[in-house]
Amino acid sequence: MNGAESLLETARAAGIDVCFANPGTTELPLVTALDAVPGIRPVLGLFEGVCTGAADGYGRMTGRPALTLLHLGPGLANGLANLHNARRAHTPVVNLVGDHTTWHRGADSPLESDIGALARSVSGWVRTSRDATSLASDLCDAVAAASRPPGQVATLVVPADHQSQVAHGTAPTPKSVAPASPDADRIDAAVQALRRGPRSALLLGGPGCRGEALESAARIAEATKCRLFVETFPARAERGAGTPRLERLPYFPEQVAEACKDVARVILAGAPDPVAMFGWAGAASALLRSDVERVALAGVNEDVSSALAAVADALDAARKLSTLARFEPVPPPSGRLNAEALAAAVAHVLPHHAIVVDEGATSSLPLYGALASAAPHAWLTLTGGAIGQGLPCATGAAIACPDRKVLAFQADGSGLYTLQALWTQARESLDVTTVVCANRAYRILQVEMLRAGSDAGGRAARALTELADPELDWVRLASGMGVPAVRAEDADSLVHALGRALIEPGPHLVEAILT
Amino acid sequence: MNGAESLLETARAAGIDVCFANPGTTELPLVTALDAVPGIRPVLGLFEGVCTGAADGYGRMTGRPALTLLHLGPGLANGLANLHNARRAHTPVVNLVGDHTTWHRGADSPLESDIGALARSVSGWVRTSRDATSLASDLCDAVAAASRPPGQVATLVVPADHQSQVAHGTAPTPKSVAPASPDADRIDAAVQALRRGPRSALLLGGPGCRGEALESAARIAEATKCRLFVETFPARAERGAGTPRLERLPYFPEQVAEACKDVARVILAGAPDPVAMFGWAGAASALLRSDVERVALAGVNEDVSSALAAVADALDAARKLSTLARFEPVPPPSGRLNAEALAAAVAHVLPHHAIVVDEGATSSLPLYGALASAAPHAWLTLTGGAIGQGLPCATGAAIACPDRKVLAFQADGSGLYTLQALWTQARESLDVTTVVCANRAYRILQVEMLRAGSDAGGRAARALTELADPELDWVRLASGMGVPAVRAEDADSLVHALGRALIEPGPHLVEAILT
Repeated sequence: MNGAESLLETARAAGIDVCFANPGTTELPLVTALDAVPGIRPVLGLFEGVCTGAADGYGRMTGRPALTLLHLGPGLANGLANLHNARRAHTPVVNLVGDHTTWHRGADSPLESDIGALARSVSGWVRTSRDATSLASDLCDAVAAASRPPGQVATLVVPADHQSQVAHGTAPTPKSVAPASPDADRIDAAVQALRRGPRSALLLGGPGCRGEALESAARIAEATKCRLFVETFPARAERGAGTPRLERLPYFPEQVAEACKDVARVILAGAPDPVAMFGWAGAASALLRSDVERVALAGVNEDVSSALAAVADALDAARKLSTLARFEPVPPPSGRLNAEALAAAVAHVLPHHAIVVDEGATSSLPLYGALASAAPHAWLTLTGGAIGQGLPCATGAAIACPDRKVLAFQADGSGLYTLQALWTQARESLDVTTVVCANRAYRILQVEMLRAGSDAGGRAARALTELADPELDWVRLASGMGVPAVRAEDADSLVHALGRALIEPGPHLVEAILT
Repeated sequence: MNGAESLLETARAAGIDVCFANPGTTELPLVTALDAVPGIRPVLGLFEGVCTGAADGYGRMTGRPALTLLHLGPGLANGLANLHNARRAHTPVVNLVGDHTTWHRGADSPLESDIGALARSVSGWVRTSRDATSLASDLCDAVAAASRPPGQVATLVVPADHQSQVAHGTAPTPKSVAPASPDADRIDAAVQALRRGPRSALLLGGPGCRGEALESAARIAEATKCRLFVETFPARAERGAGTPRLERLPYFPEQVAEACKDVARVILAGAPDPVAMFGWAGAASALLRSDVERVALAGVNEDVSSALAAVADALDAARKLSTLARFEPVPPPSGRLNAEALAAAVAHVLPHHAIVVDEGATSSLPLYGALASAAPHAWLTLTGGAIGQGLPCATGAAIACPDRKVLAFQADGSGLYTLQALWTQARESLDVTTVVCANRAYRILQVEMLRAGSDAGGRAARALTELADPELDWVRLASGMGVPAVRAEDADSLVHALGRALIEPGPHLVEAILT
C-alpha cells in the first residue's frame, strides 16, 4: 500500500464517495490509487472551477465533504473563486492539491508557486503532508476539519513522492462533531425580545433555512406575529409548498431600509448580522438600522434548529401550523419572454423535490416570489458573489442527489465563466436542466452605473457591460459540450422546452432570449 | 478629475493603450473613466483568465505593459494561472484590482477576501492605494515596477472610493530603466570557456532568443563550433528563415542527458540553469549533469544582446553569417492527420512574420523542427506550465500586432480552460487562426503514467485522462462564441482550411481531428 492508497482508503472509510478532479503529473499516484481503492467515484471537470463548484454543490446537499483533486498552485488558483463561495456557504470540502516531489521543491521549476498562500485564502484548515505514512491521519484531520460545524474548506497539500512511497494502513474515521448546543441565556433573550411586541423579526440563515428549524420558526411567527426573513443568499433553503413563507432580505440597502422600516428587533438564527454586498455611497456596511436591536440566538456553528425549537416551546407556540405555503399551480406564461415570464415558467414546470440552483443575477429577481407556492424544492444561491458558481454547483448537486431533478437558473454572463461544467453533466448523464437567462449584458453593472449616476452609454461602458456583438449562441455552446439544447424566444416555447427537458433523462439546456 | 481619471491619464501618458477587463461593481469608476480618458482601448474578456493571458501575450510582443482590470479577490483569483505564466515569462503587466470602499473593508461582506495574498503569489510589486490623490503616482510606480528589466507583474489594489474621489492631475511618466550592462568578467569567462574546446554549448533564453542576440549567438557558433540551444519554453523566440537553427532543450531529463552527452560546458545567456518541469523518480532537479561547467554570461535582467556581441567580438567572430536557416517551402501533407502532418501543414501555410502561439502540448512536438526553415515568425510558448494560456495569449498578441497574422496551435484539453478567449477574438475582429489539436485526451498524463509504470487503462485513470464520451465539438463551441470554424479529418482538408482561414480577415478555428 502506498501513501495515496492509504489516503483514499481512509477517505472511503470516512464516507467520502466522490472526487471532483482535474489532475496533473504531481497527482498521478492518487489517480492510480482511485483504481486500486474502488468506491470513490472520479468525476472529471475540464476546468478546476468546475471541480470546486461541484464539490460545493455536493457538500451543500449532503452535508458531507467531497474530495477535489487539483494540480499544484495554478490548479488550485483556478478553483479559488468557487472555493470562496464554498467558504461563504460553510460547505465542507476537502481539497487534495499535489505538490512537487519533496526534493524538487525549492528548485524554482516552472510550476512552482506559493500553494499555501492560495490555500489559506479560502480554507479554514491547511496542511502539507510530512511523509507517506502520515497521509492517512492527515486525511482524517482534513475530513474532521471540513466537517466541524458549520463546515469549511480544508486543503491538504501532498507532495508527489509521499503519494507513491510505502504507507501502512488507514487511520480511524474521525468522530463527527455535533453543532454546539443552544445557549440558554440567548434563548431566553430571544423569547423576551419576541414578547416585547409585534415589531420583531426572525432572520434565518445557514442551517436555519431547512427542516425542523423552519417549522419552529413558523411556530414562533404564528405565536408572536413576528416577521420571518431569510438571508439574501442562503447556501441551501427549503422552499415551496409545505414551508413557511419567508421574506427575502433585499439586496440594496434602501430596499432593506424600506422592508424593515417597522422592525425594532431582529433575532438572528443561523444568519450573521447582515452586511451589504458593497459599500455604496450614502449607505453603511450594516444593512439593519443601528437602532434595531440584534438578538443573536444561534450562530451558524450552533444547533440552530434546537435553539428555535426551544424558543417556540418557551413561547408555548402551537405545533399545528396554519400558515405554511400550500401548493398553488402557476399557469403557464405566454407571449413575451421577460424575467417575470421566466419565473412563472419555472414555477409552472418545477418537479417535486427539485433542486433549484439560482445564479440568475438580475434575471432571477422575480423567481423568489414565483416559487413560494411551487412544488417543494431546495434553493441554492451564490453565497460569495464570485460568479461562475451555478453550472458547477448544479453538477455537484445532481451527483449528490441522483433521485432529484436539478434546475440551474443561470445568468448568461456568469454562466460563461464555467460553461465547461456542461460537459461533466453530459459525461455523467446528470438530470440537470439549465435555463440560461440570456439578457446579453452584465445587467447588474448597468444597474449599478445608473444608481451611481454614471453614464452607462459611453463607448467603454458599453464595451465592458454588453455581451452582444457577437451574440453568444448557447445552443451551440451546449451542444459542443454534449448537452442537447434549444432556444426559446417566447414564453410558450420556453414552457414547452422546459417541460420536455425535465421529462427526458440527462442534461438539457434551454437558452431563454429575454426581451 | 477623480482618482480613476488621474490614474488613467497617467497610464496613457506612460504609453499604455490597452486595458483587458472584466470589471465588477468596485471597478465601475475606472470603467467610466475609460470613457472620460480616451486613448486606452477597453477589451472585454468573458473570464479573467482571458484578460490576464491576453495581457501576457500583449506584453511579450510589445515589451510594454497592458492594464488588466479585475474584480476584487475572486476576479484576481480567476486570473492567477495566466499571471503565473506571465511571471515565468517576465512579462510586464499592470493589474488594477478594485477593492471595497475603504469604510466597507473589514465588514466581512460576501466578496471580501485576502486580495494581497493572492496578488503577492504572482506579482513582483503589490500596493494598495492610500487615497485618491496618490493614484497617479501609484500607477507610475506600478508601470515602473512592471517595466523594470526583465519585466514583471505589478498589482495595484484600488478601493472604489479612491477611484471616485477628487484627485489632482497626473504623475510624470516613469523613466525607463535599461537592462544592466554586461559584466566584463563574465564576458571574459565565457570567451575563455568557448576557447577551451569544441564541447561547448550556448543556451539562449529570455531576451537572448531574438534580434541581435541571435545574430551574435550565430557568430559565436560559427567561430567556435559550439552548439546553440534554446530553453525549452521561451517567452518569445524569433525563428524560421533568417535565424540561426537552435536545438530546443528537451523536456524529459533522459532526453536532455542524451542531447547533452557530449557537452562539457554551457554558457547561459538569458536562460537560467535549466530545471526539470517535475521531480521525476531517478532524475534530478537540474537538467544538466553536475559535471557540466556552467558559465553565467548574462541573466534575464541584463543586456544579453550586448553580452553576446561582446563575446563574439572578443572571439573575432566574422559578421557575415553562413549558417542561418534559409526558407525551404514545405510541401503540403496529405492523408492521415497526425502530429507530423499537423506540423507540416502549419509550416506549409505559415505567413511571413506570423506569430505562433504554441500550447500544443504533446501534439506540438514535431512543430519545432518543422518550423525551423519556415517563414520567419515569432514563437510564444507556455512558460509556466499553467494550461489555458494559448487562446488568451494569441488574443493579446493579435491586439499588440494588428499587422501580423497569429496562429494559435492549441491542445484541446488546455484550450478548454479558457475557450472564452474566442469571443474576444470575434468581438475585436482579430486575425487569429486557431488550430485545435484534437487528440481528445490529456495525452501528457497518459504518457506520464506509462513512464511511471502505472496502469493507464484503469477506470479512474481513463475517466480522468480521456476527453471522449462525449466528444467535444470545437466547431460548435467556436461558432457559439462567434468564430467561424471547420473540422479537418485528414491532412488535405487541414491544409485547405488553414489556407482559407489565414487569407480571410478575422478569427477562424480549425478543429484537427488527430488519429
